[in-house]
Amino acid sequence: MSRNATLKDVAERAGVHPGTASRALNPETRSLVSEGTVRRVLQAAKALAYTPNPMARSLKTNRTMMVGIIVPDLANALFPPIVRGADSVLTPGGYLSIIAETDNDAAREREIFDALLARQVDGLIIASARREDEAVREAADRHLPVVLVNRRDDSARLPAVVGDDTDGVEQAVRHLVDLGHRRIGHLAGPAELSTGIQRARAFRQCMHELGGDLDPALIVSCRVYSEEEGARAARELFDTAVPRPTAVLAGNDQLAVGLYEFLRERGLNVPGDVSVVGYNDMPYVDKLSPPLTTVRVPHARIGAEAARILLRRLVDDVSDATTVSLPVELVVRGSTAARR
Amino acid sequence: MSRNATLKDVAERAGVHPGTASRALNPETRSLVSEGTVRRVLQAAKALAYTPNPMARSLKTNRTMMVGIIVPDLANALFPPIVRGADSVLTPGGYLSIIAETDNDAAREREIFDALLARQVDGLIIASARREDEAVREAADRHLPVVLVNRRDDSARLPAVVGDDTDGVEQAVRHLVDLGHRRIGHLAGPAELSTGIQRARAFRQCMHELGGDLDPALIVSCRVYSEEEGARAARELFDTAVPRPTAVLAGNDQLAVGLYEFLRERGLNVPGDVSVVGYNDMPYVDKLSPPLTTVRVPHARIGAEAARILLRRLVDDVSDATTVSLPVELVVRGSTAARR
Repeated sequence: MSRNATLKDVAERAGVHPGTASRALNPETRSLVSEGTVRRVLQAAKALAYTPNPMARSLKTNRTMMVGIIVPDLANALFPPIVRGADSVLTPGGYLSIIAETDNDAAREREIFDALLARQVDGLIIASARREDEAVREAADRHLPVVLVNRRDDSARLPAVVGDDTDGVEQAVRHLVDLGHRRIGHLAGPAELSTGIQRARAFRQCMHELGGDLDPALIVSCRVYSEEEGARAARELFDTAVPRPTAVLAGNDQLAVGLYEFLRERGLNVPGDVSVVGYNDMPYVDKLSPPLTTVRVPHARIGAEAARILLRRLVDDVSDATTVSLPVELVVRGSTAARR
Repeated sequence: MSRNATLKDVAERAGVHPGTASRALNPETRSLVSEGTVRRVLQAAKALAYTPNPMARSLKTNRTMMVGIIVPDLANALFPPIVRGADSVLTPGGYLSIIAETDNDAAREREIFDALLARQVDGLIIASARREDEAVREAADRHLPVVLVNRRDDSARLPAVVGDDTDGVEQAVRHLVDLGHRRIGHLAGPAELSTGIQRARAFRQCMHELGGDLDPALIVSCRVYSEEEGARAARELFDTAVPRPTAVLAGNDQLAVGLYEFLRERGLNVPGDVSVVGYNDMPYVDKLSPPLTTVRVPHARIGAEAARILLRRLVDDVSDATTVSLPVELVVRGSTAARR
């Protein structure tokens, strides 16, 4: 397999003019060429391991064997398993991963994105995508080898690996409804993140379908994923939703931990007075008092699958923009009980 | 201040031949030159900000503005705050940090060290040092801008920022002795890590000074810092130390969490039957049941201080191999009580 196949090599093997080969290889101009020719050219390109995109080509022939992983916040315990999962695939593949933290700051993400590209990483795994994300948009525009994890942007032009938020929320709400709860609150994650908006949408949908109380005061938006914000939003929820909810689905486990703190201060018992469900199953929530019922997202598998997609792109030049949605699972622990 | 001073500039300013200047600047050949000449040459070099080491020089004049941070394991919750602390100094300094995880593997650390140097990071913060550490030895040999954090190697030739392990252990043991405990066990951290050996040494010393029981069966060594290993070592401790300890100091919080699990299985109450002290005060140990008494190590400050030392080296070319030991503090929570 030649790593240096040129457009001319491909054209020769396919028995066409290089200009025709070029048009056949470019999705934008492919319709100008007959189907049979396109097939022959693509087969030739594949046989010769020819990489049509100049950027991808330069990456391919001039490998640094480094993959950048951009995370919002390593102190959010769900991100280390994503990194660990990605490493479990990248390391045997001969790649070194380098991690950079955006501190949930869009400008910082952009800076890190540029800096990692300048250092010629072979590809990127981005865990910090916002729904509108300049770096992600540019990566898509330039057809860079980039895979999103956990969060995705609204344009959905890049491959992404996420947990199935809709199903996770449905499992959680169904569990609470089965326990007799109807007045169920939701601490919604940040609206600029896909996880925040998807889970909130799924929550509204499920409450509608499963006969929950549709009072809008039962949904409070959080500005960030943090314990402090969870406690603040919980206060808002319990001060405005009358009568108070008998159960709450938190947008993630950090918000649930903040909710625990608020309920303790307010003198409300979990799960006696209020059932609580988190989201993520991050380390140590099984050791909270009471242990947290939560939706387990397979973060290590998400990281590993993203790395596999990236390597298929880097090594085999196979690329597509599919979103892979991995199954999630409700883990029932001590924080949920039948409504009194 | 010229950033491009050459050896010739230094020789001219000192009024000596460049060959003499070179010998005066090299510690290995300095003894061949008279003391007065050495002093003049060093003064000239300092005035011109001349960097004698070619590697350091190339780093200095050809900045990438990237600092590598090598950590053993991001899932150990003490490392993200170290990274965050370092970033709090590196970011305003215009530096981008890139993090790589060794997975506690010496060969992997070496690989990462080489890869980051090949990518021409301006400096390194290493949190993964073992007491005998090839990468650390080489960094010292080559006078690279490297600062160790949290753990240090035995040669102590590089600057390091750590918590005061001796004082931390003494606060913990004194607290237990004050509560009436004499038969105090210790789950010692890995002997190849400075934190493991230092805390175990301090433990023996304090038990001796404060009148604790010196039965060697009370100290069990752990091969790694992990919950599973903590549970395994706890089983060994309680199976071999007769009568059983009434209190245990764990080498870190992860080991303490494993100890909790073991004691729960064994039907022993914390703190009723056994008092437990951890080490580090990692996130969420205040939410365990009971909340863990532990030694709080200022990890964010450790990261920040390491970054400051590194920037002094990179920007002002000030370097020394001091170990900075930051004060630690016992945080008393619900896992320790008077001996029954």
